[in-house]
Amino acid sequence: MTNHDPYRQAGVDIDAGNRAVELMKTAVRATHTPNVLADVGSFGGLFALTNLPPQPVLVASTDGVGTKVKLAAELGRWRSIGRDIVNHCVNDILVQNARPLFFLDYIASSKLNPEAVAEVVTGAAEACRAVGCALLGGETAEMPGVYAEGAFDVAGTVVGIVDRAALLPQPDAMQAGDLLIGLPSSGPHTNGYSLIRQLVAGLDLNTTLPGTNTSLADALLAPHRCYLAEIDRVLHAGIAISGLAHITGGGHVENIPRVLPPHLAAEIDTAAWPWPPLFAQLLAWGEIDTRMAFRIFNMGIGMVIIAPASSAQPIQELLPEAILIGRLTSRHPSIPAVHLRTE
Amino acid sequence: MTNHDPYRQAGVDIDAGNRAVELMKTAVRATHTPNVLADVGSFGGLFALTNLPPQPVLVASTDGVGTKVKLAAELGRWRSIGRDIVNHCVNDILVQNARPLFFLDYIASSKLNPEAVAEVVTGAAEACRAVGCALLGGETAEMPGVYAEGAFDVAGTVVGIVDRAALLPQPDAMQAGDLLIGLPSSGPHTNGYSLIRQLVAGLDLNTTLPGTNTSLADALLAPHRCYLAEIDRVLHAGIAISGLAHITGGGHVENIPRVLPPHLAAEIDTAAWPWPPLFAQLLAWGEIDTRMAFRIFNMGIGMVIIAPASSAQPIQELLPEAILIGRLTSRHPSIPAVHLRTE
Repeated sequence: MTNHDPYRQAGVDIDAGNRAVELMKTAVRATHTPNVLADVGSFGGLFALTNLPPQPVLVASTDGVGTKVKLAAELGRWRSIGRDIVNHCVNDILVQNARPLFFLDYIASSKLNPEAVAEVVTGAAEACRAVGCALLGGETAEMPGVYAEGAFDVAGTVVGIVDRAALLPQPDAMQAGDLLIGLPSSGPHTNGYSLIRQLVAGLDLNTTLPGTNTSLADALLAPHRCYLAEIDRVLHAGIAISGLAHITGGGHVENIPRVLPPHLAAEIDTAAWPWPPLFAQLLAWGEIDTRMAFRIFNMGIGMVIIAPASSAQPIQELLPEAILIGRLTSRHPSIPAVHLRTE
Repeated sequence: MTNHDPYRQAGVDIDAGNRAVELMKTAVRATHTPNVLADVGSFGGLFALTNLPPQPVLVASTDGVGTKVKLAAELGRWRSIGRDIVNHCVNDILVQNARPLFFLDYIASSKLNPEAVAEVVTGAAEACRAVGCALLGGETAEMPGVYAEGAFDVAGTVVGIVDRAALLPQPDAMQAGDLLIGLPSSGPHTNGYSLIRQLVAGLDLNTTLPGTNTSLADALLAPHRCYLAEIDRVLHAGIAISGLAHITGGGHVENIPRVLPPHLAAEIDTAAWPWPPLFAQLLAWGEIDTRMAFRIFNMGIGMVIIAPASSAQPIQELLPEAILIGRLTSRHPSIPAVHLRTE
């Protein structure tokens, strides 16, 4: 790919880190389905639209991974960041029921480390391939003086497609009594890392996280989980759902209301599932109360399905990990859109 | 737009800079054609595909504006950066004959300045509106510790569409004797700024650029020009062209070969047009020779049309600013793909 030649931009000797770059190229090519046209002379990536739905709607989202990149740079572990950015973006358009077509990445630093770039791109390519999404292009930028020493930033853009009739959320189909069904997260995903970095500052990240067999580093850098396969299973089984909320920055408190009509509120039973050890530890270190926790973190639930009560059992049969975390209630103007039940 | 609330991300008092943010919102909304669907609960932006060509191909490109952002930050002039990133991306997909559908921006800093964000987004919205492109979404990210003090980065992604049969370049249609027809640039566009910043370091940017009535600051921050309207005029008139090269990083020397078949080279008559005063000055300050100059800068020509000789006169009649800058020649394996004639 023309745009993915970190050596060219970095001015680094072509011999160094060749293996990482070759791995990256192979990984990127492996994402190229027949829809990706040959990129002779390409300034942009080409994606042929085929098998279009009756009323095709493109859904696009740009996002970054936040200061999780800072932690990754400190630990010299970049590949998971590539998976983070792709999965974050894919989940963001999944809540509108879009399936990803292609992804483009942006990686920038004051001085590029070609191996780090190759690792990020390889991770992104792996995550793209897992969901049938083409890694269509990207840009690596060397920006002297713009980034802090040793720091880099990673952003990405996904473009997906959905039939207009299948768009989610469907607020008109929601009513009080509908259920909130959560799917487990793999960790904090890509949210809350500026706070997390403060809380773990000075700690040895190779120590084991209490209550687990996992190092703190592994727990903190666990890649953002993608929920496409799980949602596909539910929808392919013909189970009715009316909305999905991706629990990102702002946590449950800010993200669930984004898909609710104004007359409905979400009641979350915060004790319905055991908070994963990492979150329990972060809350203890930061003396963070439940309300604040649910405004910052996903608390172990990365995707919330909103569905009529009759869908709960079939969903839980298909996805045994699914947890009933709450329900929709009538919303009075005087109460917030999310009520946290702490028992 | 949900994603364009810099206050939320920056944690800044909602009262400060309200006017800039209102201006931004109005500017963004003004780009929303009927294809943009209401963004209730949107995690991603929605764009309905209508009036599709027979073989629709999406063309996508992600890019940044390089360290021009550093100059903009130093001068506190952000709006032109928004125009830069959009026009750069639109030109990049124009060379494949794609017309932009929508754009998404990414703006990040260690500490966001909401007025700066609003200015960048307003500039991007203005540039989008000028070419009928929807500003569909974006992300503003505050990344403590990742960016240098006062620095910010701006990247963007454009998605456009073209009929497969109309894709450019058409290398099979090119032959020796075809002409290279240049369209003037508005300045260095978004390339060479790491070098430019070294060359002007310590100078008063408010001084007048010799040979002009323009300040050095104005000349350096002139927005990247968009060539969509000019190329549309040529194509709508039915004039045959076989390729377009957007002269970006790598200058003429690296960008023109990207659209040529292996058996053809480009011969550029570097004296065919007067180099604009800014470039002449930069070359003098940096003691940069012609070959290096054409490898870094656009030297006053931002877009090159490759066309059969018979198209030259009709193009110049339609676009009086168009300049005949060279021609295609047979390429022998021993010679480089671009030959610079200096007379």
